[in-house]
Amino acid sequence: MKIEGEAKLLRIFLGENDRISHMPVYEKIVIEARKNNLAGATVYKGIMGFGGNSRIHSAKILRLSEDLPLVVEIVDEQKKIEDFIPIVENIFDDANCGGLITMEKADIIKYTSNKK
Amino acid sequence: MKIEGEAKLLRIFLGENDRISHMPVYEKIVIEARKNNLAGATVYKGIMGFGGNSRIHSAKILRLSEDLPLVVEIVDEQKKIEDFIPIVENIFDDANCGGLITMEKADIIKYTSNKK
Amino acid sequence: MKIEGEAKLLRIFLGENDRISHMPVYEKIVIEARKNNLAGATVYKGIMGFGGNSRIHSAKILRLSEDLPLVVEIVDEQKKIEDFIPIVENIFDDANCGGLITMEKADIIKYTSNKK
Repeated sequence: MKIEGEAKLLRIFLGENDRISHMPVYEKIVIEARKNNLAGATVYKGIMGFGGNSRIHSAKILRLSEDLPLVVEIVDEQKKIEDFIPIVENIFDDANCGGLITMEKADIIKYTSNKK
Repeated sequence: MKIEGEAKLLRIFLGENDRISHMPVYEKIVIEARKNNLAGATVYKGIMGFGGNSRIHSAKILRLSEDLPLVVEIVDEQKKIEDFIPIVENIFDDANCGGLITMEKADIIKYTSNKK
Repeated sequence: MKIEGEAKLLRIFLGENDRISHMPVYEKIVIEARKNNLAGATVYKGIMGFGGNSRIHSAKILRLSEDLPLVVEIVDEQKKIEDFIPIVENIFDDANCGGLITMEKADIIKYTSNKK
């Protein structure tokens, strides 16, 4: 597989504790990304932060140890990213969780899918 | 709250040990972002890196265990991000620390601020 | 040193275990970035993910504890980033590893290279 030229970077911001029937939502998203043959997905964990929910749950002004913020990053060609967005929205709906999804433009300089 | 369409991704690169009167600078930035009603802020910690300072302090060629590089990421609409930049610059001045601030364009695909 | 205005964000996605004669590939990239006077480089480690290789090695459906995904991020002016890309490609060739390299546009808001 080879993608070249212009692509999209999808970033999905969510909480570590968001669950969809006992499975972490970020794990579900990674599994679905793989099923849909996306080029790759990576989950990064923040050490501090706040998101949409922290407004509502104002008792925890800043989420520290529990429910740390995560981002799932996926890079692929525009068509595949756009097809994947409704899948993520469905996961959010099923998990009954909020979240922020952004898309940025990225140029693919090199992509090799396997060791030579 | 709802943001839609084009937005900005603000990224603030700084060191783990940068302090502003005993408070980590990244923590101060997150608190100020929340006070200013930004949509969210997340701090990610690198496992290795170098920045502006490592030139000067050439003895520590690469900062490993101590003073690891951090990035604070904030996504919101352009106006709110632009209003927040001088606040960050003031924090940098007060902390007497260097740093890199970048801004990228991001499309907001979905933003839900609370659990349904 | 001062960079201002439009710049490029180079992101290099690779695996934690990729090696170039016993040295982690990400470490080699950071050292080369520094030798080439790039403004800074940061390595972030994911907590979960898959990349090009996980297709091939389908036994490990998702790489969990071992070979976690990493990203090396470098921000600098376009010319310096473009000159650095072939160096990264050579490292990938020498390490005999696959990887994804992307480039995004970023505006530099502020860059101070040393404490005042």
